[in-house]
Amino acid sequence: MIIKTIQWANNAVKIIDQTRLPAEFRHVYIRDLKCLWHAIKTLQVRGAPALGAAAGLGVYLGIKDCKARNFAGFSRQLDGVIRYLGSSRPTARNLFWGLERMASVAAINRGKSVSQIKKILFAEAMEIIEEDRRACRKLGGYGSALIKNGDTVLTVCNAGILATIDYGTALGVLYRAQEKRKRFKVFACETRPLLQGARLTTWELKQKGIDVTLICDNMAATLMRQGKIDKVIAGADRIAANGDTANKIGTYSLAVLARYHGIPFYIAAPASTFDARMKSGEDIVIEQRPAAEVTRGFFKKPIAPANVAVYNPAFDVTDHALISAIITDRGIIRPPYRQQIKKALKPL
Amino acid sequence: MIIKTIQWANNAVKIIDQTRLPAEFRHVYIRDLKCLWHAIKTLQVRGAPALGAAAGLGVYLGIKDCKARNFAGFSRQLDGVIRYLGSSRPTARNLFWGLERMASVAAINRGKSVSQIKKILFAEAMEIIEEDRRACRKLGGYGSALIKNGDTVLTVCNAGILATIDYGTALGVLYRAQEKRKRFKVFACETRPLLQGARLTTWELKQKGIDVTLICDNMAATLMRQGKIDKVIAGADRIAANGDTANKIGTYSLAVLARYHGIPFYIAAPASTFDARMKSGEDIVIEQRPAAEVTRGFFKKPIAPANVAVYNPAFDVTDHALISAIITDRGIIRPPYRQQIKKALKPL
Repeated sequence: MIIKTIQWANNAVKIIDQTRLPAEFRHVYIRDLKCLWHAIKTLQVRGAPALGAAAGLGVYLGIKDCKARNFAGFSRQLDGVIRYLGSSRPTARNLFWGLERMASVAAINRGKSVSQIKKILFAEAMEIIEEDRRACRKLGGYGSALIKNGDTVLTVCNAGILATIDYGTALGVLYRAQEKRKRFKVFACETRPLLQGARLTTWELKQKGIDVTLICDNMAATLMRQGKIDKVIAGADRIAANGDTANKIGTYSLAVLARYHGIPFYIAAPASTFDARMKSGEDIVIEQRPAAEVTRGFFKKPIAPANVAVYNPAFDVTDHALISAIITDRGIIRPPYRQQIKKALKPL
Repeated sequence: MIIKTIQWANNAVKIIDQTRLPAEFRHVYIRDLKCLWHAIKTLQVRGAPALGAAAGLGVYLGIKDCKARNFAGFSRQLDGVIRYLGSSRPTARNLFWGLERMASVAAINRGKSVSQIKKILFAEAMEIIEEDRRACRKLGGYGSALIKNGDTVLTVCNAGILATIDYGTALGVLYRAQEKRKRFKVFACETRPLLQGARLTTWELKQKGIDVTLICDNMAATLMRQGKIDKVIAGADRIAANGDTANKIGTYSLAVLARYHGIPFYIAAPASTFDARMKSGEDIVIEQRPAAEVTRGFFKKPIAPANVAVYNPAFDVTDHALISAIITDRGIIRPPYRQQIKKALKPL
């Protein structure tokens, strides 16, 4: 089965509805901006790189029927679309990276006709998609060198096909290692509250024929204590200039546990996830999500008393000092991060 | 509302069915041994100290209608009952402690008539219950000295009223602190897969009017990183001679995280949870539970692909070196544990 997380098809944004996995594999065609905003907000489409593509396609979706005759009018609509899409989820860098990139391409081409600019923006959205496909494969190539025969790798949330266009970051490393015929096993943290590890990561690893075992998030430490984990690889939603990394809640916990047990802890992310404007993790805004995700969510009935207070941050920040290396499409970045990130990410 | 987790009433073992909480508060009367075994296995009644009481009452339930005319016949039935109850759950020390205690009382009284021995065993089961009530209050008294005004305490699973007769161990410390009019807040880890933290701990803390916030297990580290947790208190299922402690899965993770963040980590348990025959945590048998608890359990539909491999240990072992102190009914035990445990637990 070919899995393509997000694409343009039939004049619409076509996504896999990830809220239905693993029970149902179903595509959704999104034809208006509100639906796309909703799809992002409810995590029908999620994962930082996939949100970069959603930004590109979303901007095109939002302006393709624009009636403006001049750039001023067009630009007003474009700005509105960008602001609106940017209000869906605050933490994933790639969403804003994609939006800024579309805005900048429009601005550069302001001298052209509105219909020409529309075509250019469509081409740019397609280019974002193609770049992600290439970046994930490059990243996988670099990262796969870290995987040894017989390794057992722990991962969290979903940083795979379903978080990108069609290959993955953390899981892309594993797919590339598999292509190189390396033998390894994976433990997947279920990743409460929305269970992306249980629902998405185990599903796609099984599609790929990779040996995967599901655990609850609170079981990772005991596996490490037993010496059963050789390395941890996680994705990223935003990486600050000093290497501090925001990723799905629970990632920081694994990084601390890995450090305690002497296990290498890797982050895998494309250049588009880095945010040079954030000096450190302190600057990264962490999305807070509704209490009901924790207390109701997937459950048959509420699993906690009505009106219980809930703390539900969608992400945490892992200090760069806990990260052994950051696997990117520009190579593997190692400490000292501030200098090495700057060097690796300088314009090609 | 008076909450009594397990008691003898109407010639039956009366328990709160904890699998129905928090949606329903319902008592179940258990009149035969198989039902009690099932109630223990399915966690209708759970928590190490409560299982000590279940052992006492269960033995009485199993022998009260014994038709044997002499001790030999009675003893055969008693042995069968004890072996059967002991096969329900392997890790909680108190279950075996209770069973061994009942066996020993029967043996001491072997010269008496079967009907006299039955009465003595019933009295012993009642005494186990009364001792737990006193032990939890004593333990709470000692532990409450550790709670400072303004503290925020993190706990895991349920080591409260619902894990004991009517007061709790880790939560007993908090109840005693509340009685002393100390102000504090609690964060409760939901405790996957069976959600005892979400379902039971938040429920009973709310009954008691204590400020509690629910988190997913993978959120504890980020709270610690933010400096929001002043101490961690967990219960115990079995404590080895060197202080290594088996408790609900996830406890070890919290202990490592607490150490990394410089936060005191306490275990709270009565003397009956200590097992001098276990030299260290290596000797403790960890119960493995079914995959379906993780993939189906409370969910509307399966949250992972069919036949996904699952690792589901019910407990983990926390190294004594990570434990700041063990709060018991004999006082607060501090390192060096091997000597101090021996000293604290010597027969009164």
